[in-house]
Amino acid sequence: LLEGWRRLGLPETNTGVVVAVSGGADSSALLLALDELIRKKKLALSLTVAHFDHGLRGATSKEDARWVKALATRLGYRIALGRANVRMRAAKLRDNLEQAARLARYSFLARTANRLPARLVLTAHTMDDQAETVLLNLVRGSGTDGLGGIDPVRSLDGKGKVLLARPLLSWARRAETETYCRTLGVEFRIDAMNADESFARVRIRRKLLPLMQTFNVKIVEALARTAGLLRDDRSALAGATEVLLEAAREAAEAADRENVPPGLRTDLLAIAPAAVRRRALRHWIAQGRGDLRRIELVHILAVESLLSGTRGGRVIELPGGSLVSRTRGCLRFHRRPARPPERDR
Amino acid sequence: LLEGWRRLGLPETNTGVVVAVSGGADSSALLLALDELIRKKKLALSLTVAHFDHGLRGATSKEDARWVKALATRLGYRIALGRANVRMRAAKLRDNLEQAARLARYSFLARTANRLPARLVLTAHTMDDQAETVLLNLVRGSGTDGLGGIDPVRSLDGKGKVLLARPLLSWARRAETETYCRTLGVEFRIDAMNADESFARVRIRRKLLPLMQTFNVKIVEALARTAGLLRDDRSALAGATEVLLEAAREAAEAADRENVPPGLRTDLLAIAPAAVRRRALRHWIAQGRGDLRRIELVHILAVESLLSGTRGGRVIELPGGSLVSRTRGCLRFHRRPARPPERDR
Repeated sequence: LLEGWRRLGLPETNTGVVVAVSGGADSSALLLALDELIRKKKLALSLTVAHFDHGLRGATSKEDARWVKALATRLGYRIALGRANVRMRAAKLRDNLEQAARLARYSFLARTANRLPARLVLTAHTMDDQAETVLLNLVRGSGTDGLGGIDPVRSLDGKGKVLLARPLLSWARRAETETYCRTLGVEFRIDAMNADESFARVRIRRKLLPLMQTFNVKIVEALARTAGLLRDDRSALAGATEVLLEAAREAAEAADRENVPPGLRTDLLAIAPAAVRRRALRHWIAQGRGDLRRIELVHILAVESLLSGTRGGRVIELPGGSLVSRTRGCLRFHRRPARPPERDR
Repeated sequence: LLEGWRRLGLPETNTGVVVAVSGGADSSALLLALDELIRKKKLALSLTVAHFDHGLRGATSKEDARWVKALATRLGYRIALGRANVRMRAAKLRDNLEQAARLARYSFLARTANRLPARLVLTAHTMDDQAETVLLNLVRGSGTDGLGGIDPVRSLDGKGKVLLARPLLSWARRAETETYCRTLGVEFRIDAMNADESFARVRIRRKLLPLMQTFNVKIVEALARTAGLLRDDRSALAGATEVLLEAAREAAEAADRENVPPGLRTDLLAIAPAAVRRRALRHWIAQGRGDLRRIELVHILAVESLLSGTRGGRVIELPGGSLVSRTRGCLRFHRRPARPPERDR
């Protein structure tokens, strides 16, 4: 863990850290290993255990919370407990349950970190989680961005003041976390949902990965390696995208007035590599709309099609009603005509 | 097919074309469809049918060749037949059988195109082949380069004088080629090796893809889409790699004298994104050694490690004995001391 910690460049002293603990083997092992490193004075962290009750499993959820609280107390750490009715939220946002649970959990972790305050939030994702995420995104037809999988370190608040890090991701296997807990005599909790094959992730774990292992016994390592290579690609392409956007932005006065992103010069977009151009368009559209909800590859390609041909005057409508036009050598973003604000996103 | 043809920007008139026909459904369908387009005067191609007998299946191989010859003759096209003992070649080059068969086949196609001469060679790879290739490379732990799968168009001779194109790749399904042949009353040949599960590709087709289809009924389309996105990324990164290599090359006189690639400036390599830097190093090493045989990611990372730290003087040995050192702010390539030339590659 200490090696993985250093590889990610995480701070070793004087740092407030929130560690997310569900009570399962992975997160219990992370907590126990951090505790070991703190007691051995290898790390000097001010640690808070955070547990989020998604309210999905009734009495079991409550027992998990009690169990985590008892473990944290026994080890001598503060505990932050959060709860939400994720099923209701999912219904309200028309999101799937896993997505809603994730959003609620990370928002709780971010609030907890801000309140303490703590600079670092840790989750116990393992290499197995990484492999499953890569495959989940693959069966959905993701590109580089999805296939890069889980980030080892990213900003949790979008401002970089709170970092989210996964110190187990690049090396620890799920089975190892179970063995480690057992060695320390800690009877981790077992989440019944991990056996519910109505979740795609569970079927990936129980069916797809074992079959892929017949092709390559080190399939989990291979998928994690692929994800790492693709994250490197993604970061190189993100750099190129920024350079392109910077260069292609026209003087921004008009755009400032209308509160839309500045127009983009079509000549510079046209000569950029497709992969960089499309990323730049996605980024620009996100700026204009506020988000990328319901924006698919087909919309990016439609906007890109404005660049070809010599005549201007064509207009592309995006989901939600905003428009992109091409005039005077620039792509321009137009918010959709004002309507009741609650329908605006 | 005509739509796919135009999307690839292939020439529609006055072009010598070699179409590779094994006698299976895919390649028979491609030949029949080209014939239809030629007869309807949609394409004006001078078409030669090429069939390669890999000598792997004894009497059946010979029957396949006779069958393809009969079909070509009936349609009124020239036929070029080639053969090789691929099993022997594979043993000699210590290559696997599929790899050796592929090399022998493409070398035959290139020779045929050069002899005629023809500018364009076509193979009948379908979207199913693309999905299988992506998964084969995935289980091996490939990065972007492997996951991009089969190229729709590439140079066959490395000089761009003969193009290799796959006009079915982005849209045709294998089952459709079978239906098309049957509709035209053509009883395509069935390759018994397509049922031999000792080949990873066959197990991918028969086991892995059907399981993945339970996650996404359009899995083949999804994988083909992913491959397309990754090929776009690859090509953007290749462009950035060229720019970096161009900038980082030092004056080449010394290198010219020793017949090795010019040194690369460490300061410029160090500030490039990792994905671009590693591609540049791979390319430079390939130039120095003549090929990338036995070069793995670990070797690229070892050479990259020369860039960190302030002291020079360290040396990395590559498989085959060539060396990379860091001196006076440059990485330098050194061929290994002369030994009998037949061992040099």
